Amino acid sequence: MGPGPINVHPRVLRAMSVQLLGQFDPEFTGYMNEVMALYRGVFQTQNRWTFVVDGTSRAGIEAALVSTLQPGDDVVVVNAGRFGLLLAEIAERCDARVTFVEGEWGQVVDPQAVEDAVARVKPRLVACVHGDTSTTIAQPIEAIGEICERHGALLYVDATATLGGMSVPADAWKADIVTAGLQKCMGGPSGSAPITISDKAADHIFSRRHVEKGLATPGSAGNGRRIASNYFDLAMIMDYWSDKRLNHHTEAASMLFAARECARIVLEEGLEARFARHAQAGAAMTAGIEAMGLTVYGDQAHKMTNVTGVITPAGVDYDRVKARMRTEFEIEIGAAFGPLAGKIWRIGTMGVNARKHAVLQTLAALEAVLRWEGFVAPAGAGVDAALGVFA
Amino acid sequence: MGPGPINVHPRVLRAMSVQLLGQFDPEFTGYMNEVMALYRGVFQTQNRWTFVVDGTSRAGIEAALVSTLQPGDDVVVVNAGRFGLLLAEIAERCDARVTFVEGEWGQVVDPQAVEDAVARVKPRLVACVHGDTSTTIAQPIEAIGEICERHGALLYVDATATLGGMSVPADAWKADIVTAGLQKCMGGPSGSAPITISDKAADHIFSRRHVEKGLATPGSAGNGRRIASNYFDLAMIMDYWSDKRLNHHTEAASMLFAARECARIVLEEGLEARFARHAQAGAAMTAGIEAMGLTVYGDQAHKMTNVTGVITPAGVDYDRVKARMRTEFEIEIGAAFGPLAGKIWRIGTMGVNARKHAVLQTLAALEAVLRWEGFVAPAGAGVDAALGVFA
Repeated sequence: MGPGPINVHPRVLRAMSVQLLGQFDPEFTGYMNEVMALYRGVFQTQNRWTFVVDGTSRAGIEAALVSTLQPGDDVVVVNAGRFGLLLAEIAERCDARVTFVEGEWGQVVDPQAVEDAVARVKPRLVACVHGDTSTTIAQPIEAIGEICERHGALLYVDATATLGGMSVPADAWKADIVTAGLQKCMGGPSGSAPITISDKAADHIFSRRHVEKGLATPGSAGNGRRIASNYFDLAMIMDYWSDKRLNHHTEAASMLFAARECARIVLEEGLEARFARHAQAGAAMTAGIEAMGLTVYGDQAHKMTNVTGVITPAGVDYDRVKARMRTEFEIEIGAAFGPLAGKIWRIGTMGVNARKHAVLQTLAALEAVLRWEGFVAPAGAGVDAALGVFA
Repeated sequence: MGPGPINVHPRVLRAMSVQLLGQFDPEFTGYMNEVMALYRGVFQTQNRWTFVVDGTSRAGIEAALVSTLQPGDDVVVVNAGRFGLLLAEIAERCDARVTFVEGEWGQVVDPQAVEDAVARVKPRLVACVHGDTSTTIAQPIEAIGEICERHGALLYVDATATLGGMSVPADAWKADIVTAGLQKCMGGPSGSAPITISDKAADHIFSRRHVEKGLATPGSAGNGRRIASNYFDLAMIMDYWSDKRLNHHTEAASMLFAARECARIVLEEGLEARFARHAQAGAAMTAGIEAMGLTVYGDQAHKMTNVTGVITPAGVDYDRVKARMRTEFEIEIGAAFGPLAGKIWRIGTMGVNARKHAVLQTLAALEAVLRWEGFVAPAGAGVDAALGVFA
């Protein structure tokens, strides 16, 4: 019940135990094409360039940033949590110039502040985390997308913690690149990063298209300055995922099977039903926490539906509660980072854990563990309040 | 029966269907520590820093190069195949200055040429592929290791195609960093890159150690110029794999389970027994190919034991043979790259495919397919010659 990585859906575990095929076998490249089509559904996009990057969710982030940014490019980073800082850190390693739009942890940023920065800096790219699990808040991406369109900036969105749990409408957002991972609401393991890229962003990336030395023929030298990474060179990765099938990495087949099964499950359930299930589970968790006399962290109007920050009450040992949840009940809850370290626990309701029994078990266990700490909640109040939301 | 990716060992497939744990759960970090110990055995090393990078084998290569090289550093690349060019391409993207020691495809490089280049350039790093499947040749790493030691250069070795199939003695080689993948002789899927790092190389990498922005406290700013990649910043990745457990990526748990099971299987079989099995299967394949009246590519004295290049005889359709092997017999054999494209097939004997029945089936099928092309080998000669090697 942490904020990801979470328990994996049993069908995804089974998909990973399927025997491999050669990476250019027509059956296997057929699965690659299926993955592209499936993730267009998951990202609610028509983008041709929709596939997976072979690595964890931050591999997707780095691929997006290193492939779009050149040294000296300006980037505006909307920063309201740990993972906003990660975007800035990666952009700086691309030798881009970062301008921050700072938001308070636990709040949404003011779109006007984003617009002011974009108008002033005229950045190549605006980068923003959708739902940052470190703060439990979802940012207003749609407003930022409109700002980027008005000012001709590309928009990158990190949807690691929300894809498959909250709506991530890449096209409606006017987002140019959106990346994610499997280990949160997609219900899979870490190690594969879904990505979708608009034609506009793809054109920009292809302006630095090169053919790898070992495959190049005379005249195929390429355009512009080489992208600073080979592994994350999205122009090459797109050439590999295209009908050209130009050899790049050896596709991580088992993770591809996992990504495929995650998307199939999401689309079979239906996006709206799935978002509603996550919203209900998150609302039930919130109601249960509050009925226990605890306080939920952050701006409730913009709280992610799939993670709930619980403020540690005075006199209660933060680490011991977390440890006892794990050792006595085999339930993991998350710690917090940065200014919230030691102050809030983060409880996820993601993927297979966004279900009634998982919410009720967690609340019942938390009530017991807190009682051992001397924090006595009204008996059964958390469970009953949550059950009321599900009823 | 290609040169990797290959069929995965059934135990590895099962390991990937195990349910996940939180990334800081003591049970899970225990598995991470086990992986470190297991790969010390596989790499024949005492190196403390022995773990896996979350990505395909080229993720391991890029992590090694981007974490050791700074802009302007000199690197000597021993280049005798497609994957030597890849090392150079990645080093150039690190803005390092590449000096090539060129070897002929299908031959070993002359260590004296390496020594001359190292003495002249005084590089930070020498980079070499051990066994390059594009040429089927294994390079004399031990001699290069001695040269690097004499001249104070770090040695990086790409052992993707040989680890678990041929001896990769990192310490005896005096190699500073060795990386690999699972998808060849380790018998696993692509997507996890084992790496081992000497203390000397680790000290060098830690001279650019930084704490990630989202985790940094005042005073933890770090040393030197930031490594150009966050995802491949080995200083951060080592801090994550150390007792500090400083959060970096979310470890790809299913791939970690796969990497662990691969290493367990390798060590249970025993390194010497495993190398002997690969050598026998490769020798049997070679004997069979020659008994069919075909010619094996490259310098036989330095041929990798786990891949055999077969020169396509005149009058035979290269692509159709490969296609019919797959469509009629469900046996994949590999095409070739660069100067060998369309000229040799590459047949692997790796992992679970380094076994008698796999070799015999492949030779029997190839005899039939070649006969359809008008190339008539003596009936059963290939199979009989291979069987003789196994007997």
